[in-house]
Amino acid sequence: MASNKALLLICDGLGDRPIKSLGGKTPLECATKPNLNKLASEGECGLMDPIAVGVRAGSDTAHLSLLGYDPYKYYTGRGPFEAAGIGMDVRKGDVAFRCNFSTVDDNMVITDRRAGRINSGTEQLAAAVDGMMIGDIQVLFKESVAHRGALILRGPNLGAEITDTDPHHENAAVLTSKAVEAEDVASARTAHAVNEFVKRSYELLKDHPVNKERIANGLNPANIILPRGGGIGPNIESFECEYGLKAACVAETGLINGVARYVGMTVSEAPGATGGTDSDLVSMAKTIIDQFVDHDFVLCNVKGADVAGHDNKPQVKMDMVVKLDEMIEYLMKNSPEGTYIALTADHSTPCELLDHSGDPVPIVFWGKDVRIDDCKAFDERSVTKGGLGRIRGTDIVRILTQLMNVQEKFGA
Amino acid sequence: MASNKALLLICDGLGDRPIKSLGGKTPLECATKPNLNKLASEGECGLMDPIAVGVRAGSDTAHLSLLGYDPYKYYTGRGPFEAAGIGMDVRKGDVAFRCNFSTVDDNMVITDRRAGRINSGTEQLAAAVDGMMIGDIQVLFKESVAHRGALILRGPNLGAEITDTDPHHENAAVLTSKAVEAEDVASARTAHAVNEFVKRSYELLKDHPVNKERIANGLNPANIILPRGGGIGPNIESFECEYGLKAACVAETGLINGVARYVGMTVSEAPGATGGTDSDLVSMAKTIIDQFVDHDFVLCNVKGADVAGHDNKPQVKMDMVVKLDEMIEYLMKNSPEGTYIALTADHSTPCELLDHSGDPVPIVFWGKDVRIDDCKAFDERSVTKGGLGRIRGTDIVRILTQLMNVQEKFGA
Repeated sequence: MASNKALLLICDGLGDRPIKSLGGKTPLECATKPNLNKLASEGECGLMDPIAVGVRAGSDTAHLSLLGYDPYKYYTGRGPFEAAGIGMDVRKGDVAFRCNFSTVDDNMVITDRRAGRINSGTEQLAAAVDGMMIGDIQVLFKESVAHRGALILRGPNLGAEITDTDPHHENAAVLTSKAVEAEDVASARTAHAVNEFVKRSYELLKDHPVNKERIANGLNPANIILPRGGGIGPNIESFECEYGLKAACVAETGLINGVARYVGMTVSEAPGATGGTDSDLVSMAKTIIDQFVDHDFVLCNVKGADVAGHDNKPQVKMDMVVKLDEMIEYLMKNSPEGTYIALTADHSTPCELLDHSGDPVPIVFWGKDVRIDDCKAFDERSVTKGGLGRIRGTDIVRILTQLMNVQEKFGA
Repeated sequence: MASNKALLLICDGLGDRPIKSLGGKTPLECATKPNLNKLASEGECGLMDPIAVGVRAGSDTAHLSLLGYDPYKYYTGRGPFEAAGIGMDVRKGDVAFRCNFSTVDDNMVITDRRAGRINSGTEQLAAAVDGMMIGDIQVLFKESVAHRGALILRGPNLGAEITDTDPHHENAAVLTSKAVEAEDVASARTAHAVNEFVKRSYELLKDHPVNKERIANGLNPANIILPRGGGIGPNIESFECEYGLKAACVAETGLINGVARYVGMTVSEAPGATGGTDSDLVSMAKTIIDQFVDHDFVLCNVKGADVAGHDNKPQVKMDMVVKLDEMIEYLMKNSPEGTYIALTADHSTPCELLDHSGDPVPIVFWGKDVRIDDCKAFDERSVTKGGLGRIRGTDIVRILTQLMNVQEKFGA
C-alpha cells in the first residue's frame, strides 16, 4: 500500500457551453458551489482534453484515457466493455458482443427487435444458451438489463471484423454474418460461430417455458438473440501492474464498471447510487472512503450531470453541482491524510447540444504541496487562468503518481 | 451539406516579433483593427503552433497541418505540391518534380539556369515533351510561370530518393541522377527515367521553333529541362472523406492551391486577388460567401502580410492588417447564419528576420455558443490570456467539426 492515496473523481458530462437563459454562463459557472471553489482555491487548476483537443469523447473511451490507456490502442468496440460491465471476464483474444433478445416469426423475420422490452425471465433464457460449444469455440452468454445481454466467443484464432446479424430495423430477416474482408480467415471463423449461435438461440428459446408463458400472456417471445458491435479483447495491462497501485472503482453505470473491470479494478457499489440525478452522492463519498482502507487509488464516476445535459435541463445540472459540492465537502473533511483529489469530467455534455461535445473540461488537483495557483473557482472558464495550462486525459494518472511519490524515475 | 458552415481564414505570415520602431510592439499589436478585436471579444482566443512548438513552418507544410494532415506523414517534398498547384493530377505513387527550363551548351554545360528568364513559348516547349513514355513510365510535364514547370513520372515501383540533375549553379555540367541508396531499386528506376527525360528534353527542344526564334533574337534558348525536389505522391484521404465536409479554397498562390487540390478541395479565384499587398480582400470575402452556397468549409489564404514580412516592411504589414480588418467586418456581417470563423496565420514572418520563424501565432474561434473569454484584442500577446491555451495546427479542424456538430463521437 502506498502512503498517499488518490481519488480521481469524474463528474460525467459536467462541462457545458454558455447558456442564454443563464445569462451566458454555464451551469457550473452559475451554481452555488463553495466547496468546489475551495478545492480550486487550494489546488492547481487547468483545462483538460479527455482524449485530444476537439475530440468528441464517449464515456468509455474517455475513461480509458483518464486512466492512462490510449483509447486508440485499447478501445476495440462497444462489445467488450458491455460484457465486462455486467461482470463477464473478457480475456485477450475473446470476441465480445452486445446483444438484444428479439422476436422473430417462423420465417426468421424480426417482428420486435426488443422482444416487448422483456424485463423478467432473461436469466433463465440466458442459462439455456450459455456454455455451449460451437466446434472449438466456447460460448459465454449473460443477460443484462431489459432486453439486453452480452456474448463472448472464446477460442483460438478469432477475428472481429464481421458484419452484423441484426438488420437494425423490424420486418426484416435476420442477416447472415460474414467477414468484412473475404480473406480474413479469423473473422470468417467468428462469423460462422455467430451465425450458428443465432440459429441455435432460436432453437433453444422458441419453446422455452419463459416464452410459452409470454405468448400465453399476449407478450412477444424473446425467441432469438442478435449480437452486434463485436470487438476483440485487447492485450491490456492491469492498472495495478501499470502503476503499482491497488485500485477500486465506485460508479453507477455498467459501462464505467466495465472499463474498471477491464483494467482489473475492484468494483463496488454505493447504497443509494442510482445513476440518475436523485443519486445519493454523500453515500458514494462514504463508499470511496471505505475503499481507501485497502486500496491506494479510487476512480469514482458520478453520472447525474450527464443525464441533465442529455435532457437539456440546465437547472437540474446546477442542482447536481450543488450535490457534488456536498460530496466534495465530505471528501475534503474525511479522506485519509495524504490523499490527493483530482476532480474533473470525462467530457462536456452541453445542455443545448443534448449530447457530448469536444469542448475541454475543467480539472483541479488538490492535496499536499501542489503548486496552488490563483484560480478561485472551479468552472470551465475560471480554470483557463490556472497553473496547469491545458493537459490531456492520459496525463492525469502520471500527475497523481508523481504527487503520491510512487512513480519511478525515468533515467538517473 | 452541413447545417453549420466553417471558414478557416489564414493570414499568411501574420505573426511577428516586437519591433523597436513600433515601440516594442508587433505590427498586429500596433495596427488599428476594431473588427479583429470585436471577433476576439466575441470569440475564444489562444496561441497556435502551426506544426509543433518552435517549428519553423513553411506555408505548404503548415497548411497541411492546419487542415488536419500531419505534414511529417504527408509532406514528401516540394515537387508534388508544385505540380498540384498548377493543376496537375498527382496520384499516389507518382514521383513529381519542380523543374527549370535552362540553357546548356553543346557539352551539356549549363550557361543559364533560367533560360534568360523565358516568359513566353514555354507552353509549346512543354507540349513537345509531355506525354512521352520512358519504358513503362509515363511522362507528364506542364509549364508554370516564367522558366518554371513541373514533371510527373507515373509507373509501377518508383522511388523518390534520388540525387538532382541540376547542379544548382552555372558553368557546371548537368549531373547524372542516382538513387541515394545503391540498393534502392525503385529510386534507381526513377533516376534512370529522370536522366533519360533530361537527355530527351535536350534532343526535343534544342531545335524547337521557339528556341530558334529566341536565338535569332539574341535570347538564351530554353533547350533543356532540369527536374529537382522530387517527392512521391502520398496516400492521402480527401478532406471530404476525412471530415464529411464539402470544401473549397480561396487563395492567391499556386502553392496553397496545390495543397487544397491535394486534399480534393474546389479551388476558386477571387477577382482582384493578386497575392500582393494590393490585393482586394473584400472581393476575396465575397468569393468566400459565394462558396458557402455549395460548400460546408472554406479555406482562405491571404498572402500580403507574409510579403511585407519578407520585405521587412512593418508599416505595410500594418496596412495589411487594416485591410484584413475590413475583410473580417464583411465576413461577420455577411456569412450565413451558423457560420464558425477560425482566424489565424500559417506561421510568423517577423519583419526583421525577413523570413518565417517558429513563433506561435494568434488564433480565435468565433460563432454560436463558443466559450467567449475575456480576451479583447487579436494579437500575439493578448491571446495568451485567452481560453484556448496553446493548441496545434492539427487541432483546428477537430475543434471546428465539433462546434459544427458534424464530428462522430468516439465511443459511447
